[in-house]
Amino acid sequence: MTAPKLTLIGAGPGDPDLLTIKGMKALESADVVLYDALCNTALLNYAPADCPKIFVGKRAGHHSLDQQAINALILKLSKSHQHIVRLKGGDPLVFGRGFEELIVAQQAQITFEVIPGVSCINGVTGSNIIPLTHRGLVRSFTVVTGTTCKGLISEDLNHAAKGSGTVAVLMGIKKLAEIIAIFKAAREDCPIAIIENGSLPNQRILRGQLSTIVEQATKENIQNPALIVIGEVVALQDMLTTPEVLRLSEAG
Amino acid sequence: MTAPKLTLIGAGPGDPDLLTIKGMKALESADVVLYDALCNTALLNYAPADCPKIFVGKRAGHHSLDQQAINALILKLSKSHQHIVRLKGGDPLVFGRGFEELIVAQQAQITFEVIPGVSCINGVTGSNIIPLTHRGLVRSFTVVTGTTCKGLISEDLNHAAKGSGTVAVLMGIKKLAEIIAIFKAAREDCPIAIIENGSLPNQRILRGQLSTIVEQATKENIQNPALIVIGEVVALQDMLTTPEVLRLSEAG
Repeated sequence: MTAPKLTLIGAGPGDPDLLTIKGMKALESADVVLYDALCNTALLNYAPADCPKIFVGKRAGHHSLDQQAINALILKLSKSHQHIVRLKGGDPLVFGRGFEELIVAQQAQITFEVIPGVSCINGVTGSNIIPLTHRGLVRSFTVVTGTTCKGLISEDLNHAAKGSGTVAVLMGIKKLAEIIAIFKAAREDCPIAIIENGSLPNQRILRGQLSTIVEQATKENIQNPALIVIGEVVALQDMLTTPEVLRLSEAG
Repeated sequence: MTAPKLTLIGAGPGDPDLLTIKGMKALESADVVLYDALCNTALLNYAPADCPKIFVGKRAGHHSLDQQAINALILKLSKSHQHIVRLKGGDPLVFGRGFEELIVAQQAQITFEVIPGVSCINGVTGSNIIPLTHRGLVRSFTVVTGTTCKGLISEDLNHAAKGSGTVAVLMGIKKLAEIIAIFKAAREDCPIAIIENGSLPNQRILRGQLSTIVEQATKENIQNPALIVIGEVVALQDMLTTPEVLRLSEAG
């Protein structure tokens, strides 16, 4: 057996056709696949039929295997399998803890490769016609998690709220009221969208304002996985044919 | 002829295999393709042989067709072609001006779809083993352009420099000294990477510190398209086997 290899693949935001060609090819050559709760299981069909597919999913608050156990499993599998494919939702190195698995591989002298994926950040917003930036209107965006590993709101979220860019918050539903309060203290009322199960057939999208969204999300019982997007870009779609948007497109 | 359709496709960061399966399928059904300077031309092979492929590329400072002309071309082509595919580097709605083309489509009552792509932001960093965030170390990232449409440094860049998250700057090489000065005023010296032609065979990557990078980039004559990444995450790869990173991975 030649040296084992670990390939981290970004599965994309949910729609199986948002996998990259490179990711598909790596799956086709897998000897074993470890996959997340947020990966579309349709993607497992690209792996050989006799290749074991092991669920190591985690959802906020419901860890089926903790990260230490996944790391140990990668080490163990590297003794018997040549190509270990680790399929992770979205992109493997964007809030994905993928780097921790690379550390394990490096220590065990397993070669590794990272195949980026369509992150949910632009994948879920883009397929819903929400641009993260728009010339003449918004010039930056910040991405932050709803809670830190200690369950607290990140200081980075406070800082982002005080800026003027678009802010995308991952996995923030459980802290939604707290997050919105921070934005209300820092910004004028502005458009916000929450997209649950983005890019999948069971996707739900809520659009509102900072002043209305907590009530809307409670009423609709929105759950993670969900992406929260805050900023004027959320309202652009509704204004596609108004003179206001046309002026923006002509501002150069 | 049924109603014409415009499909915006993200071509990914450069490596042609980082196109999505969905993007590939849309290209296969194209009647005409309009493509950017930053798209890998290998992708045009997915389109039918007899399908016209029109270069409408722009590079900073060298516009071959300005946005108004591209918009007009989309309108004109919609009279004669059923499926217009617009292939854009990275993701079409992340600093891509893609939304402006959707406005045109909407006005002309052309149906449209957006197929997200792997953005250079995570595509170029990920394939170079630079995680944008890392549990216990960095909890957010901000993406900003090097210059606004008026050629100025964006206020958003100042704000991001004052935060503690990773900052990615697109198309910032021409303003590198100014950008670095802003970070030096706001942060301690920290790691920085500049990746030119990311994910392509001719990629070059420079790693340094805020205090050294301007001299390095000048010496190496780094040019756009390049991605600048600022923050502690840049140094993680060098530390893959050190106890410091292991502590990070165990911090949970």
